[in-house]
Amino acid sequence: MTPLDVDALLFDVFGTVVDWRSGVIRDGERLAEGKQLDVDWPAFADAWREEYRPSMDRVRRGEIPWQNLDALHRDSLETLLDRFDVEGLTAEEAEYLNRVWHRLDPWPDSIPGLRRLRPHYLIAPLSNGHVRLLADMAKRAGLPWDLILSAELAGHYKPDEEAYLTAVDLLDLPPDRVAMVAAHEGDLDASRDAGLHTAYVHRPSEWGPERVDDNAEKPDESAYDVVADDISDLAMRLDV
Amino acid sequence: MTPLDVDALLFDVFGTVVDWRSGVIRDGERLAEGKQLDVDWPAFADAWREEYRPSMDRVRRGEIPWQNLDALHRDSLETLLDRFDVEGLTAEEAEYLNRVWHRLDPWPDSIPGLRRLRPHYLIAPLSNGHVRLLADMAKRAGLPWDLILSAELAGHYKPDEEAYLTAVDLLDLPPDRVAMVAAHEGDLDASRDAGLHTAYVHRPSEWGPERVDDNAEKPDESAYDVVADDISDLAMRLDV
Repeated sequence: MTPLDVDALLFDVFGTVVDWRSGVIRDGERLAEGKQLDVDWPAFADAWREEYRPSMDRVRRGEIPWQNLDALHRDSLETLLDRFDVEGLTAEEAEYLNRVWHRLDPWPDSIPGLRRLRPHYLIAPLSNGHVRLLADMAKRAGLPWDLILSAELAGHYKPDEEAYLTAVDLLDLPPDRVAMVAAHEGDLDASRDAGLHTAYVHRPSEWGPERVDDNAEKPDESAYDVVADDISDLAMRLDV
Repeated sequence: MTPLDVDALLFDVFGTVVDWRSGVIRDGERLAEGKQLDVDWPAFADAWREEYRPSMDRVRRGEIPWQNLDALHRDSLETLLDRFDVEGLTAEEAEYLNRVWHRLDPWPDSIPGLRRLRPHYLIAPLSNGHVRLLADMAKRAGLPWDLILSAELAGHYKPDEEAYLTAVDLLDLPPDRVAMVAAHEGDLDASRDAGLHTAYVHRPSEWGPERVDDNAEKPDESAYDVVADDISDLAMRLDV
């Protein structure tokens, strides 16, 4: 018996499906080539990502109106370029770097896992990334989504309940016919509060090889409907 | 030089990409097998489709609140089952018939044409069909969309301006970087009024072989940015 009797799977994206850290490092290093830039790009990537939650929280608390992730990333990028002494970027180069979040690569198991799941479930991202970002990412990386869903469609960032319930409503399903798949317990806890099923995917190296030990612990098997090692393992645990 | 310098193509679906008429006839005939039913399914299909615009217009005029196409189709289906003396359907059979609009087949040129266009443009439906309907249709038929867009995301049916502008906004593009592709001049005229480019695709047999002569006339080449015979011809005219 499958542990998840649902019609659709919604996937968190940054960290769960794609490896944001190595993508930011890759494009940072390419940008620095041929310039007099000595930047610790792994530290830059981590610092940029650390600005993610606080910047969305300003929207969630209503301190600033809705802005998509390109705009939030751009605000934090300006701060970081200054903090890391990155000088001499043209406006076009800064804009190109800001859109690196559209050009992230999947973890090695993501596409094989999604391909196994797709014949059995409607599969879609449900990310705080906006629709255009997710469409660009899917097109470039070949992510085989059935459709693109996003917090943008609710005008509310996860973990606001509206983000989950708008996606479920667009799927024309009750919440208990949908599961959220994520590497982050806060996302899954909020999904469960909204009535969805939950599947945890373990990504100990999301923050790079040096932090693997910090992230080595998986939640207890009983914490979510499924606790999987990666997306291919999720497919196996769902018997597909 | 390409006649359409845009980043994204939005496609009307019913009649433009898929052949609604033969799909409704097919599933109607299958349903009638083994029952004492003598129904003119081509006439039934046409009558159902003729209810489409008036039912959406009730939403557009604010006479009834937003309802998705399954709900509007279901209302008109009840009327038609009565008018065509279709008796003895179970609730499940009626519901299955109502969802035939999720199970329509593409015209023969649609998938080859979309496959040619996809490497060069973001491609998405922009239909009055709701997101779930379009996702089901794409999954069943293999339509290679980059993302699913729908009038549902605006809460306004085409040709209301909001339907086009919401789609353009989700693409994060200005309207003049987007083209609407449709077999219906009203859809294209409204798209142009909203600032989009326009591509006409000719579907003379949308209403069946007996009405081909009525629909044989294509608009003047100057009426839209492109006037194409079908979606493969559109790809050819765009030099892709």
